[in-house]
This record gives sequence, C-alpha cells and structure tokens, in this order.
Amino acid sequence: MAEFFPDVPKIEYEGPDSKNPLAFKHYNPDEVVEGQSLRDLLRFSVCYWHTFRGNGTDPFGAGTMVRPWEDGTDSVENALNRVDVAFEFISKLGAPFYCFHDRDVAPEGASLKESNDNLDKIAAKLKEKQDETGIKLLWGTANLFSNPRFMHGAATSCNADVFAYAAAQVKKAIEVTHELGGENYVFWGGREGYHNLYNTDMKRELDHLARFMHLAHDHAKKIGFGGQFLFEPKPKEPTKHQYDFDAAACLNFIRSYGLEDVVKLNIETNHATLAGHTMMHELEYARIQGYLGSIDANTGDLLLGWDTDQFPTDIYLTTRCMLVILRQGGLAPGGVNFDAKVRRESFEPIDLFHAHIGGMDAFARGAKIAAAIRKDGVLDDFVKQRYGSWDEGIGKQIEDGTATFDSLEAYMLEKGEAAPNASGRQEMLENIINQYI
Amino acid sequence: MAEFFPDVPKIEYEGPDSKNPLAFKHYNPDEVVEGQSLRDLLRFSVCYWHTFRGNGTDPFGAGTMVRPWEDGTDSVENALNRVDVAFEFISKLGAPFYCFHDRDVAPEGASLKESNDNLDKIAAKLKEKQDETGIKLLWGTANLFSNPRFMHGAATSCNADVFAYAAAQVKKAIEVTHELGGENYVFWGGREGYHNLYNTDMKRELDHLARFMHLAHDHAKKIGFGGQFLFEPKPKEPTKHQYDFDAAACLNFIRSYGLEDVVKLNIETNHATLAGHTMMHELEYARIQGYLGSIDANTGDLLLGWDTDQFPTDIYLTTRCMLVILRQGGLAPGGVNFDAKVRRESFEPIDLFHAHIGGMDAFARGAKIAAAIRKDGVLDDFVKQRYGSWDEGIGKQIEDGTATFDSLEAYMLEKGEAAPNASGRQEMLENIINQYI
Amino acid sequence: MAEFFPDVPKIEYEGPDSKNPLAFKHYNPDEVVEGQSLRDLLRFSVCYWHTFRGNGTDPFGAGTMVRPWEDGTDSVENALNRVDVAFEFISKLGAPFYCFHDRDVAPEGASLKESNDNLDKIAAKLKEKQDETGIKLLWGTANLFSNPRFMHGAATSCNADVFAYAAAQVKKAIEVTHELGGENYVFWGGREGYHNLYNTDMKRELDHLARFMHLAHDHAKKIGFGGQFLFEPKPKEPTKHQYDFDAAACLNFIRSYGLEDVVKLNIETNHATLAGHTMMHELEYARIQGYLGSIDANTGDLLLGWDTDQFPTDIYLTTRCMLVILRQGGLAPGGVNFDAKVRRESFEPIDLFHAHIGGMDAFARGAKIAAAIRKDGVLDDFVKQRYGSWDEGIGKQIEDGTATFDSLEAYMLEKGEAAPNASGRQEMLENIINQYI
Amino acid sequence: MAEFFPDVPKIEYEGPDSKNPLAFKHYNPDEVVEGQSLRDLLRFSVCYWHTFRGNGTDPFGAGTMVRPWEDGTDSVENALNRVDVAFEFISKLGAPFYCFHDRDVAPEGASLKESNDNLDKIAAKLKEKQDETGIKLLWGTANLFSNPRFMHGAATSCNADVFAYAAAQVKKAIEVTHELGGENYVFWGGREGYHNLYNTDMKRELDHLARFMHLAHDHAKKIGFGGQFLFEPKPKEPTKHQYDFDAAACLNFIRSYGLEDVVKLNIETNHATLAGHTMMHELEYARIQGYLGSIDANTGDLLLGWDTDQFPTDIYLTTRCMLVILRQGGLAPGGVNFDAKVRRESFEPIDLFHAHIGGMDAFARGAKIAAAIRKDGVLDDFVKQRYGSWDEGIGKQIEDGTATFDSLEAYMLEKGEAAPNASGRQEMLENIINQYI
Repeated sequence: MAEFFPDVPKIEYEGPDSKNPLAFKHYNPDEVVEGQSLRDLLRFSVCYWHTFRGNGTDPFGAGTMVRPWEDGTDSVENALNRVDVAFEFISKLGAPFYCFHDRDVAPEGASLKESNDNLDKIAAKLKEKQDETGIKLLWGTANLFSNPRFMHGAATSCNADVFAYAAAQVKKAIEVTHELGGENYVFWGGREGYHNLYNTDMKRELDHLARFMHLAHDHAKKIGFGGQFLFEPKPKEPTKHQYDFDAAACLNFIRSYGLEDVVKLNIETNHATLAGHTMMHELEYARIQGYLGSIDANTGDLLLGWDTDQFPTDIYLTTRCMLVILRQGGLAPGGVNFDAKVRRESFEPIDLFHAHIGGMDAFARGAKIAAAIRKDGVLDDFVKQRYGSWDEGIGKQIEDGTATFDSLEAYMLEKGEAAPNASGRQEMLENIINQYI
Repeated sequence: MAEFFPDVPKIEYEGPDSKNPLAFKHYNPDEVVEGQSLRDLLRFSVCYWHTFRGNGTDPFGAGTMVRPWEDGTDSVENALNRVDVAFEFISKLGAPFYCFHDRDVAPEGASLKESNDNLDKIAAKLKEKQDETGIKLLWGTANLFSNPRFMHGAATSCNADVFAYAAAQVKKAIEVTHELGGENYVFWGGREGYHNLYNTDMKRELDHLARFMHLAHDHAKKIGFGGQFLFEPKPKEPTKHQYDFDAAACLNFIRSYGLEDVVKLNIETNHATLAGHTMMHELEYARIQGYLGSIDANTGDLLLGWDTDQFPTDIYLTTRCMLVILRQGGLAPGGVNFDAKVRRESFEPIDLFHAHIGGMDAFARGAKIAAAIRKDGVLDDFVKQRYGSWDEGIGKQIEDGTATFDSLEAYMLEKGEAAPNASGRQEMLENIINQYI
Repeated sequence: MAEFFPDVPKIEYEGPDSKNPLAFKHYNPDEVVEGQSLRDLLRFSVCYWHTFRGNGTDPFGAGTMVRPWEDGTDSVENALNRVDVAFEFISKLGAPFYCFHDRDVAPEGASLKESNDNLDKIAAKLKEKQDETGIKLLWGTANLFSNPRFMHGAATSCNADVFAYAAAQVKKAIEVTHELGGENYVFWGGREGYHNLYNTDMKRELDHLARFMHLAHDHAKKIGFGGQFLFEPKPKEPTKHQYDFDAAACLNFIRSYGLEDVVKLNIETNHATLAGHTMMHELEYARIQGYLGSIDANTGDLLLGWDTDQFPTDIYLTTRCMLVILRQGGLAPGGVNFDAKVRRESFEPIDLFHAHIGGMDAFARGAKIAAAIRKDGVLDDFVKQRYGSWDEGIGKQIEDGTATFDSLEAYMLEKGEAAPNASGRQEMLENIINQYI
Repeated sequence: MAEFFPDVPKIEYEGPDSKNPLAFKHYNPDEVVEGQSLRDLLRFSVCYWHTFRGNGTDPFGAGTMVRPWEDGTDSVENALNRVDVAFEFISKLGAPFYCFHDRDVAPEGASLKESNDNLDKIAAKLKEKQDETGIKLLWGTANLFSNPRFMHGAATSCNADVFAYAAAQVKKAIEVTHELGGENYVFWGGREGYHNLYNTDMKRELDHLARFMHLAHDHAKKIGFGGQFLFEPKPKEPTKHQYDFDAAACLNFIRSYGLEDVVKLNIETNHATLAGHTMMHELEYARIQGYLGSIDANTGDLLLGWDTDQFPTDIYLTTRCMLVILRQGGLAPGGVNFDAKVRRESFEPIDLFHAHIGGMDAFARGAKIAAAIRKDGVLDDFVKQRYGSWDEGIGKQIEDGTATFDSLEAYMLEKGEAAPNASGRQEMLENIINQYI
C-alpha cells in the first residue's frame, strides 16, 4: 500500500528538550495525571471533515490545499482511498479517536438509497481500518446543512419533506455510528435557526426540533445504540441566529421538551466565544448542571466575528479547559476532538501534522498545569475559604432551607449592616496562575 | 405648590400635522388599535432612576444635569420634593405608570432600619400622589448593586450576610410595592454574576439565587402580593458575565430550579442586543414559551459594547416589538417602561420631555404600523403558506406523533428526494414592511 | 433572442399607491431633487458579481440559486450568454450603470494570455450591449483574490511573481474599463492584509502596495484613461486584518505615499460597520477631506461579524447617506453601486428584482427625505447656531490664527470660567428626523 | 513621617523559585537584555490616576476602595499627603517613573487661577519627592474631560470658550511637566469626538483640534520644553466616536494637518482592541512609520465592549509587545506606563502591589522571551526567507523602480503563471513561539 506521508515517521514523545518540531514536547500519552494516562484523560480525536476534506476554500477564493492523494473526483473510489490516508495520518499522529459526518466520508448519491449504499461501502472500510489500527470512533454525525435541500434548516425546515429526509439520514448515521462502535453521536444544527423573523414560525420550528430528538432517541433505543447523544451549541453562522445559541439555550430547550435524559453537550471553543462567553464559562456552566459531555477543541480570533476554527495553542485556554475537565474526572465517553482546520495558506500535508501536534501539545501542557494548580490547591483553597460564611451561621441556615425572608430581615435589622467583604484578589490569582504557566 | 416645569403645558395629542415639537404626533392615547386604546395597549411607564435621579455622570466625568429643584443633598426632604417633581412630570407627559428602585426614591440610611424608615416616608407620599393624579405603579424593585456591600453580588454574593441583607431589602421593597398597588415586581440582578472564574463557585451561587427566588415567592404569597415577578435578562456590565445573560439563560434557570410558576421576563432592548440577539428575537422567544411579561423600552448603539440606554426612536424597532406584543394581545399586567436616559449633553429639563415624547411617539407609531401589517395579513399569510407542508401528509404525521424514523426513512427512500423548497423571499418581505413605515 | 425574465416587464415608477410589488413607489428617475433628476443624482449601478455570478454558496453549503440560463460550465459561450441576461435585467430594472470584475465577466484561462483573450471577447459583447441599451459602465476592477495564487495577497504578496501577475491583470482591467468608457476604476484589496504578524513584513508589503498604485497611475496616464481611481476600505475578511481597514487607514496610506492626486474612496456600508463606524461617519469623514468618490450601497447585520452584503432597505440608513451625498452635490463620476446579494434562500430569479427594487426605492426615499430636511434647514440651522461662538470673539481669533496659548490663558484667567454650554438636543433632533421618515 | 504601606517591604527580585507572592520572579531590573538593563528597556511607570485616585466606582455603584490615608476631602492638604503615599508606593515597588493628569494630582479650584495655584503647590511637593527618591516623570497630561464644561469636547468643543479654557489648562500642564523634567507630554482626547452626527460639524472640529496642536507645539518651543508630544488613540468611550480612533486615524490627522514633526503615538492595549486591532498590530503599524513613542500597558477583556483597563498578565501579549519594542531598541524617551486599575473588588491597598508586580513580571518575562526568539532568529529568519523573491529578479526590479505595468505584463505573459507559493506555516510558528513561553 502506498504511503501518503512518506516523509513523516510515527510521531513520538521526545520530551521537552527535543529540537524536532514534529515531536511532542509535552504530550507523552503514558504520563499519568490525576490517576489517568494523558491518553485516557484527553482522548484526542481527529476530525475527518477539516483534516481530510478541507480544501482551503473561503468565501472569497477557491481551494488551496495540496493533497496529492486526491484524484479530483467525488467518487466512492476516491473516498475509499481517503480512508487509507486518514488512518495513516491518525496512526502516525498517535491519536486514539476520530469523528466523521456521513457526507464527508462518503459521497452523496443521486438518491437517498444511493447515498446510503455509498456510506455502507465506506463504513466497511472504516471498520476494517479501525480493527487494523486500534483507532476508535469518538462520534459520528450527519451533514444536514451542505445540500441545498437544507437551505431552510433540517429538523426546523418549513418543508416537512426536509425533516423526513433529515430523519432518514440521521437514522442511517446513527446506525453506522453504532456499527463502528462510536461512543457518542453529535447533533450539530448546522442550519437549525433563522435568517429573518418576518418569515419564521419559531414555535413550530422548535416543536419540530424536539420531535426530531425524541424520534432519534427512540430509534437509538430500538437498535441498542448506547452511545451518548450530544448537542453542539453555536450562536450564529451560517444562519443569523441558531436555535442552539449556547449552553443555556440548549439546556432550556432540553428541559422544556423533556430531553433531560436524552442529550448532553459538546462544547466548542469558537462557538462559545462567538456567543459572548469564555470557553471556561461554557464548560463550567454545563458541568455543574451535569451536561458536559465532550469538547470540540479549537479556538477563534476574538477580533473576528466568524468561526475561524483555529487549532488551540494558547496555554491559558487549555489550562482553563483542563481545570474544569479535571473537576469531573475527564470527559469519557466524550473526548477532545480537534474541530479545527489548518489556515488556507498552510496548504501542504506537513502543515496538518504541525497543527495537530501543536494542539495536542497545548492540551497536554494545559492538563499538567491544571493538575499542578489543583494539587497545590491554590485556587480551590482560596474559593473554599471565600465562601466560608455559607458553611456556618446564617449562611448555613439559608442553604439548609430554615431561613425565611422574615428571619433574614430580623437578623439584619438586629445586625444593621452585613459583615465586611473580603477582596476578590483577582490580580493575585492571575499572578499565581502565571507561576504555573 | 411650586411648578417645576413652568414652561411646559400638559402634553396633548395634536396629530400628524402639528409643528409643536412637544406634541405627540402619533400617540393619541384614546386611539383604538386591535380593540384596545393605545393607553391600555402600551401602558407607558416612566422610570424614576434615570429620569429623576440621573445626573449625567459617566465613567470619565461628573454630572452635568441641570435640575433646579434639587438641593444637592441626599436628604429625605429632597427626596420628598422630588416626588412632586416626578408626578408633575409624569402627569404633564400623560404616562399612566411609573417604576422605581427603593434606593432611588428614598435615601439609604445608616442602618437597614433607618433605610426602611426613609422608604416608608417616601412611600406614603408616593401613595398620596398616586391617588391625587391617578398615575399607577407598574413595578417596583430593589437596588442591590450600588452600595459597596454588593460588590460581590447580592443573592449570589460569597458573603452570606449580603444575601441576608438583600433578602431583607427585597422583602421591604415587595411590601412597599404591594402597598402602592404595584402590578409587577422586577428582579434585576445588577451584580449577580462574576468577574473571574478563578475565584468563583458558580454552582453554589446559582443555588443561592434560586433559594432567594423561592423565599421571595413565599413571602409574596404570605403577604398576599399578587403582582407578577419578573426577571430582567442582561448579559454583562457591571460584571463580566451576568447569570441572567439572556432569555434562554433565565428560562433554563427557571426550569432547572422549579420556578416556572414564579417568574416571567422583563425584556430590555439594549440588554438583548448586548447578548447578541435582536429585541424581536428575545420577545418572540419569551412569548412562545409563555414568559413575555413586560419590556424595558430603550435602545442601544450596536457599535458600542455597553448599555447606552437611549430612548427608542427607530420605527423599525418599535414596529417589530409591537408585532410580537400584539400577537399576545398586549403586555398587561406588564407594560412599556422607558428604562432610558437622556444623553449626558442633553442636560436641560426640557430634554426629558423631548426624550419621552419621542419614545412614546415611536411606540405608538410602531403599534399602528404593526396593526396595519397584521390586518392586511402580509406577514401572517406568507408564514402560514410557507409552513403549509406541515398541515397535511408527512408533515401532519410528524406533528401528530405517528411518524417514526423507520416510517420517515421508508417514505424518503421511496421518494428519493425531498419536495423542492420555496424561496424565503426576505427581500420582498422587507420591501413590504417598508411600504408600511 | 431568448428572453430570460419573461414574466417581468420593464419596471416603471407607479407611485406611492401602487399595489404592484415590482413597481417603484419612490424612485421616479425623472423626479428632480436639489436640481438633479434622481437618475443623475443616484446613478444606480448593478454589480455583475453578486447579481449574475452569485450562486448562493456559503462556508457551510453548496449553491442554491436557480438560474435557468446557466449551462453549468465556465465557458466563454456561457459567459457571452450571461451578458445578454445581464443587460436584459439591468434594462428592465432601469438602472443606468453596471460594474464588473474581470474574472466575473470572463472565465480565467490556462494562462494569462488566454485569460486576456477571454476577457477581450466578452468586452466586445459588453460594448455592443452598452451601445444597444445605453447602459454605462460605472467602474471596472480586477479580481485579485479568488485564484489560489493570491493566497498571500496580490500587490502585498510575499511572492514577487504574484505582484507581477496582479500588475498584468490590473493593466488589462484598466484598459478594458477604458475601452468600455468606465467612469471609475476600483481597487479592492481582497487579500491585501495579513493573517498573522509572526510571518509578515508589514512595512515591505505596504511599500509594495504603494508602488503598485503609482505604477497603475502611470499606466492610466499613458493610455489616456481619465477615470477616477478608487480604494475600497474594508477592515477584515478574508484576511484577519486588511491594510485598507477604513477611510482613515486608506487616507493615511494615500498621504504617506504621495497618492493624494491618484485615488479617492469607494465607501461600503457593511465594511464601514465591520470597522466600527457608521456609514454616515465614513462618508462624512471622506467628504470633508475631499475623498468621497463613490459608494457600495449595501448593509450588514450589526449582530453578525462578517460581510453579509444585504440590500439596503433601512430608510434611516439611506437618509443619512443622502444627507452627506447631497452636501457635496452628488457622487459623480461615482455612483450608488449595489454591492449586495440576495439571500441564499431567495434563490429564484424574481428575487433579484425584489432586491434591487427595494434598494433603489429605499435610496430614492432617503434622497427625498434628506432633501426635505435640508430644505427646511432643521439640522443645518441647528448646527450653525451651535457653533456660533466660533464666528466671533475668541472663537474667531482662534480660527483666524491670531490667538496663542498665552493670549488664551490670559483671556481665561480674566474670565475665570468658560461661558455655559448649551444642550446637544440629540433626542429632539432624532424626533425631528422621525417627522420626515 | 507615617508609613502608608507598613506591611510591605521594598519589593526585590527574588528569582523564579521564590514563594513570596510579592516578589518579582522575572523582573530583575539589573538583568541585561539586548544590551540594556530591564530597568532601562522597560522604563516602568505608575499612573497616578488609577493607582492613587481610583476609588472603585463604576456606572452601577459607589466607590469600594479602602485607602486609609484619604481624609475624604478634595483639599490641597489631602492632595499633598497623597504625594507621600504615591512616592512611598512607587519607591517600594521599584518603578523608575510615574505619570499624572493635572486634576488628579491637585484639586480643581473655583477659578482657573485657583486651580493653577493648587497645581503649583502640589508640583513643588512632587519635585521635592522626585529629588528625594530618584523617581522621574515619564509624562504629564491635562484632564480635559471630567469637568462638565468639557461635555462637548475640549479642543473640539462647539463652545469656543471651552477651547480657550483647554488651551490655558494644557499650557499650564506642559509648563508643570517641564518643571518636573517630564520626558513626554500626552494628549488623550477624552471627549474629542462626537455622540451624534446630526448636531456635529466634523470638519470644523478637526480643524480646531489641529490648531490646538500647533498652538501647543508653539508654546512648548517657546518655553524650551523638549519632551516628546504623544497622541493616545482610542476609538470610543465616553463618546460614541473619538477622532483619535486608532493609530491610522491619528496618523492621517497628523499628516493632513502638517503635524509630522510635532507628535508621536502612545499606544494602549485596550484602546487597540476596542478599535478592532491587536496591540501588536498597532505597535508595528506605528513603528514602521516612525511614530511609536510610548505605551499604556494594560489589557482588556475582548468579550466586553468597554475599556476595562486591567493589568497585563498574559505572557503572549507581553511577548508580542516586546517583539516590536525590541525591533526599535526600546521606547525611550517613552516607556511602559501601567494605565491599569485594580478590579473594583480588589479594594485593599495590598492589591495595588499584587497588580503592579504582576504587570511588571509579565513584561519582564515577555522581554526575555522575545529576546530569546530574536536571538535564535526563529521568526526573523523565516520572514527573511519568505520574502526572498523580492531580493532578486523581478522583485528587485519592482522595488528598485525599474519595472512598469508594461514590463510586468510582458514578464508574466512570457511566464504564463506566477511561481508557486510557499506555505505560510502559521501553525508551526505558533508552536515555535509556545516553546519559548
């Protein structure tokens, strides 16, 4: 079999003194952090769409990527060949997982049946390569946004046939994910939103979306798929306003339609920031409610207003992510999926390695820094002490449910004024974090 | 009694041809729209804080407002005098309602008791003036953010005493609101949020906020206050991140803590836009879930990132608001409160009239335009027809709950491809709206 | 010859009471405003790229546009056919001008020579149709961003060959524009900027851009092209940071490289807002410095961070634009070019008419409103009076150049405090404007 | 004399292993980087306004800062006492410079004369303390925005008297700066901008601003003040739009009014980001044009839309700043001034130390990282090689001025297509930078 990255050996951890730009300096998969190997803690996943299907187009220009293995067609043969490329890449990189959309692994056919047949052919090959390499499927999903039929949305389309089509497509995608042992299934509402409220019945669209989720859940149960369902919040783009705006919008939807046991969240950095939240906020907000399922690890440019999907290399960002992730002992069955793409100008195959190595390195470094911060207790101890007034006296009564507005008023009329506040010490805490970076 | 605006007569509707800049050209309170007078439909309210307490300070400069009736002190006497000013202003303006914070009507004392006593004195005068003028209280609220004790929040403070203080203060504010016949009580979480996640226990803070709401509800029931409770979403400012970020965050909080029957939403334009939503989105999103309670009618500058609280004068904005409000037949017991302030450079008393007249005029105009659009059915008919595929066939089966993923797949495998989409006609609809402006 | 829009008659002004959605209600081209017909004042132009080449792709989906006249190829034949479509459309619409990029009218060939040959063939047909219909060319430009060779920029590429290629392409585009009687030539620096400062020599890139402009100017003089050169500011997208960020960045570049007599500005609404300015700001800023040349009339969504290029339908926007444009007596030799595209979901040919008619209507309406405001002097008189202190006394001395810091200090030490300020009356002015809307 | 920070010893460098949170871990002032001590390279300055006058007010709340040395008055005595506080703080911190506004060091009097007298009294004490401690004045400036007289601007006010007042005030401030040996004088146009274009004559305002600068320059020459004049760009806040929007707007103004030899730029991080630029962009843009004079070292929160003026602690930020600053061999006579304030919740005196130490540490660390990157040439070598095509052949001809559009077309027609591009390698470069963090 041809080798597609002949100049790149399997990437190995060489340690912090290595001068080799293609070696991990921080990601030693066997290194143990809080009782887990970094491999098991981070569960890195390569995304098929950006890495193997991204061609560098942008709204103002044609594709730029040089991918010598592509034959320029959208044929099943080319798709099969691409599976070999993907597994060679993921193997050399040393990532334990991958993720896919139905339409990025297999070409869409002239009819739904033909599309399904194409997908089956590729799935067989994916399974074969999984078995051969030990690489596993973190999650599958369906592309419900590229084809013009989805112009008005999929489950929220004004066209009922499009809902039916989407249902059929998701049914198949869940089945294929199940066959491939996928540990999760992701719903990204690519066009579930609106461009304009003048022509939109928001209530009816949300009702349909909820119906869709219940039907998907029923089907998963029926076929015995036990993987975790995940929503992926995103505020806008391509639509003006997506229904899954952020974690709060997703959770409100989940609760209002009785989907609490059906779906958790897959949080993406760039989607968080486009919605006006830090990634740490979205992670913590989901975590404390029991809905943090998995992450799409990328980063955006906060001076730009669209999803740039850059690889995450900021150590502050990865440290903050890992502080939250370590609080819940990791993400499994979710993981750290790189929903990130090389820049349009980084068009050579080797750039794919630089990009993924940088992201994995940054997350490994963040994990180790976060673990050190947690071990020393420098944040946790501060926070525990800061909320100390809730562990006794009036605070404890409030938490216990024994206080009322009457009793609290009596307490405060007697006392006259609240006990003094303590400084929040934000600057000191930022300095402490810097000592760990 | 002295007259405070001696040069301004009672504002009367003079109709569209009036050349008098102080006369309403569109707001004739007796005009009937969809079966209600504009007075009853719009329920305009003047806010006490901006209009009677705003002094024109900004982060870079001292107050500028010329208010000849002020004696420069924060005394009870000055506060009592200000009640006369307020009711003269509201009467001349012809607004049927007002709103207040406890601390903007009455000065804070040296102790909670003294503050309560001050508030009682002013409340007595407010009641007297209400009776005298027929002006009513739309809602009351408590200022839980100005005093340094609230630096870390009120119900979400890390300091349990501050929660107790806030509880006592809200207890009193609800009682005063009740005495004054207030139709609603608003919770604006002025500092309920965080500046930094390093020092914050978000879970514990949200638990406390929920506890606070339940205690407030219990107290309202106990004293027989039947007014509507309202949350006011805001994404940020003064904190980096407020817990009541937007309607979705509020509703998720409400649902996750069993507050569904306790509180609805008071939506503010500038808060909506700071959160990345149009005002129309937030209104419609709240409405379809049954939570649209009242509005804070102002507007922001979308090129600025802070709450400018400008008076609403954009007819497109007011038309869109009224399209949603008319869908639910009005806002009562809520209303249209002007949470807006004159510009710092508009420092003369007469500017207060220009500002409010402009806002009332714009909303009246929006109401009439929205009613005309609704009467002609130009949007509703389009939308009904656009979703027509859901009223029969496969769409009806999905809505009825008789479809499954299996049946939908079978349907689509048979059909091969979804029925064609129709154009969304956004440009045509925008043109049609323009014909009504 | 086939008719491409068989169901659409030539659009005629039918006046404000027309119920025909395809008739202008405000744009009567013969109506005279401030001494000019609306036709001559507004100089509407249809852009070739969005209107005849836009296919509805976005970063997440394939093209949606239904264009029955397209044969699906990028052949010269198809391009020639498209010229007929374009001129039928523009004729029926009644727009006096159009604009084009070299590569949207003619297909790129396998070599520069072949591309030039293709362009010549199409240009001949364009000229023929211009003569036949009386439609004129407002401006031409070159596409220096779609082909992968321009990935690092054109005149600012790190690859000198790409500069040479761009020079050759612009040379040809200017020549073709000249042949077609184009009244302007636009430089839009599609990728003249950077993605990352780590790999960028900003100084060298800006030097090259200036060299490029001087060479273009030399060539235009050489061939006798007397059309106006125009820069089009844009802050970002596709690059992270474009060198022509806004009017100020363009003008600083122009002045620092001695290009004052070479180039003016083509201001685009959506680019202005993405840079944090109102369109009115950019227009006025350019106008007062003598650099307002032409406009790209579109609008963006201020809650989105990318260039949505929507058709302008907001009457406030068009009124503000026209207030500035009327101050300089119009834009000629520039004009009002619709650099706007129908929404991806408005995929039918008829939507092209709705969109353009809406934009023309809105600008005509803005022109008439602005003229009425100017005629009544409601803004101009206020402003003149507001700055009255500069027309006499100390103000006049400062403007005349006879004051010094010494004399001003002496004046103020004597006076002790400045004369009182007057209210800025922003709310009153907004209300007044509303009376004209 | 009383000690104001009795618990804080003089801060000394203790090195990277120190566990003392009040010790510098990276800022050893005697450490030499690229031939200069860190003391001379960084020229740290403490700002008087935030550090000694900031009281923690924000738009929603009263001051929170605990400052035991304040007597609660705005008297000259309190101001004199505060000078002792300031110099004790700066001395203990080990910063070589400070900066001030006239009105933050001395109280405004009832007349201009009284204000000047107050300022003289404080200036005498400042001089005495400078001599005693060796601390020097980096720059002085005048507060032309806090007093209501400046509501419409200072040099750009519609009220000519306000221009005169501002002139008198700046005259005095320059003189005091001169007496105190200030090395620069800064112009921050606090309200030089507009809120609304309806009431604004932008041209006349800009003309006045230019006149003001020429008068200031004339006066400086007259009194022999040789310090550097600096503009400080800021896009907005408090006004909707400031004339000194960003470096480009300042430079365009400078060039259009013949101020090239009069004034350079003082770039502030948070102002840069509010204008849509990275700090590195603004620094490099100013540097390559010869206008980088000094910096206001702070940072903002990119998810917030106002000036948060936080202390800079992000090592990526300080590294990028220092990469540019080292390119021009430092900033002298400018420096690194901390225009930053402790958070409102960090209200204890000790927080002032944490904040400044964190900022100094971060900049020292950035300086050393940047120097290491430069020493290894990892960026410079890449960039030099990337632009290699400009050092020979067609690139050299273009730079030399021997190429024309004709010659470039001939070259490219012959060649047919440009030489291939090379990858931009953004991901690899980001990884390399991470190895130095």
